[in-house]
Amino acid sequence: MKKHNFSPGPCILPASVMAKAAEAVVEYNGIGLSLIEMSHRSKEFVEIMESARNLVLEHLGLSNKGYQVLFLQGGASMEFLMVAYNLLQNKAAYLNTGTWSTKAIKEAKMFGELVEVASSKDQNFNYIPANFEVPADVDYFHITSNNTIFGTQLQEIPNTTVPLVCDMSSDIFSRQMDFSKFDLIYAGAQKNMGPAGTTLVVVKEDILGKVDRQIPSMLDYNVHIGKDSMFNTPPVFAVYVSLLTLQWLKDLGGISEIEKINNAKADLLYGEIDRNPLFKGFVANPADRSKMNATFNLAENANKGLFDQLWNEAGINGLNGHRSVGGYRASMYNALSLDSVQVLVDVMKEFEQKS
Amino acid sequence: MKKHNFSPGPCILPASVMAKAAEAVVEYNGIGLSLIEMSHRSKEFVEIMESARNLVLEHLGLSNKGYQVLFLQGGASMEFLMVAYNLLQNKAAYLNTGTWSTKAIKEAKMFGELVEVASSKDQNFNYIPANFEVPADVDYFHITSNNTIFGTQLQEIPNTTVPLVCDMSSDIFSRQMDFSKFDLIYAGAQKNMGPAGTTLVVVKEDILGKVDRQIPSMLDYNVHIGKDSMFNTPPVFAVYVSLLTLQWLKDLGGISEIEKINNAKADLLYGEIDRNPLFKGFVANPADRSKMNATFNLAENANKGLFDQLWNEAGINGLNGHRSVGGYRASMYNALSLDSVQVLVDVMKEFEQKS
Repeated sequence: MKKHNFSPGPCILPASVMAKAAEAVVEYNGIGLSLIEMSHRSKEFVEIMESARNLVLEHLGLSNKGYQVLFLQGGASMEFLMVAYNLLQNKAAYLNTGTWSTKAIKEAKMFGELVEVASSKDQNFNYIPANFEVPADVDYFHITSNNTIFGTQLQEIPNTTVPLVCDMSSDIFSRQMDFSKFDLIYAGAQKNMGPAGTTLVVVKEDILGKVDRQIPSMLDYNVHIGKDSMFNTPPVFAVYVSLLTLQWLKDLGGISEIEKINNAKADLLYGEIDRNPLFKGFVANPADRSKMNATFNLAENANKGLFDQLWNEAGINGLNGHRSVGGYRASMYNALSLDSVQVLVDVMKEFEQKS
Repeated sequence: MKKHNFSPGPCILPASVMAKAAEAVVEYNGIGLSLIEMSHRSKEFVEIMESARNLVLEHLGLSNKGYQVLFLQGGASMEFLMVAYNLLQNKAAYLNTGTWSTKAIKEAKMFGELVEVASSKDQNFNYIPANFEVPADVDYFHITSNNTIFGTQLQEIPNTTVPLVCDMSSDIFSRQMDFSKFDLIYAGAQKNMGPAGTTLVVVKEDILGKVDRQIPSMLDYNVHIGKDSMFNTPPVFAVYVSLLTLQWLKDLGGISEIEKINNAKADLLYGEIDRNPLFKGFVANPADRSKMNATFNLAENANKGLFDQLWNEAGINGLNGHRSVGGYRASMYNALSLDSVQVLVDVMKEFEQKS
């Protein structure tokens, strides 16, 4: 039986994408070679890479606006470092909204002065700080659009006069925004874009080349741009599966269409969390709730053993919360169906009846 | 028709491995989830990672000898940087035997003084320098065991009193050696170990932690060791396919058995290159020839169009030489069969007859 996969990442991908990816691992497009044994310099793979890069810009509405797309390796963790290496000359500002922001700050501190404009650490990151000010003299301002672990999400893109950098790992391609407000967006693929193993970077070229330090080749965005994202052997499989997922999203109608489905899923689940007396949401202010990761706990004295039994029996996977929050986390990435969310909601109702 | 794949990398992998990998992309081991949608913290993936790490040590004869195995990202290009970041305090020695050695030297220069103990650049890297001396006061000595582009291979491991670091990307697991002579071995997976997307690092723990500089987390071997190679989300698919390939090698009898097959393949092809008057080998000294990548040119006045037609018609793929050498390159990695080499040799004979 196929599971209802609420895993926080690596996570569910469209079934049609996985079927096509599996076929390509046996033989790519009838060429007598597997996807994973053909040269990354072959015309087939160069086409895959170029299509994926172009489709990213198309989805984000950033074609012909001075942006470059890279498929790199090392996940968001490597970008914490690369962003600072490439952009931090003197001082940078960070908004601290969770574990990943905290890690990004830690890595960037090696390269210059850091201003934490606000932090929600005082309440275990259960809200998004408001009313912060970004100094005008920083090299860039860094935000995390969605906090996978705590289940919070920035609803408004801050207005800044300095370059805006965003870790969009866990909600990219899930909701419509004016993406041209960002100067650099990065995202580990393994939520809404593809399997683990590649990292998307979308960068406005004119913010690069302004720091004095020497940058190692592999960490230099300009080096990767100069080689069309093929400075070294790219992670072929992960890039191809990302392309398939981007195509699936396009066939479905793009970000504006998936956003409607994501809104319906979030409304359904948060509605039940708020209605059912046996559950309580983790996030302090409902306006800060993530539509990708819903974090919730059982009410005191609720029967945890029974709830765990019920969702496991229903074929639900990946519902345990991160250890720094506890409780439960339902990750509802693009490929998760409304039906799967309905199964979870039905289990929550059944739990109420049986308690 | 399945091609005879002589591609230099990404390259041929065992057909049984690709079939199993494709199955896992649909559903892993009957658990109701695809390999690429399950959590990297699941017991299934933790087992994959641990099995792969252990099997590497087993193949290399390095179990319980103070070595740690990591599956990282970024290929050998990232290791050029990480090696220097982690080990270069004052001065390091490098043997320059080709394009990749040259790149490794370039990246390391940012971190300290570099001594190039010898170079074969004067002859476009068509030989392996002999009689070089490694200074006793360097932090480490770096070599490249096989030069994919030029088709040369180190036949003897240099004796050193300093830590020995080796880029073994294109011949690891292909021949028996006393691997305990190395203190750090790294290899991009995409030749003998698996698909593009993961990098193997085998490091003797006692050489680490000796530099003064602060090392960014993602570039710090000790950080990755401390998290059992799961500091960040690993490239799940690439690690799993590497495990399958390592298991295939074990079932076949291990490195000593594959070495016999690799020797037979190399003998067959180099025998024909030397016999057939229409071909000449690129490497100056036959003793320096690589058993993984055979580089050769057509004799003057030979009919290139006819040869290219014949090997293409025979279903041979990936035979063009690298642009810095020209001519042809037959890459004969572990998974390439003796039959495929025979097909190439037959084409070379046919070419002679028809010329």
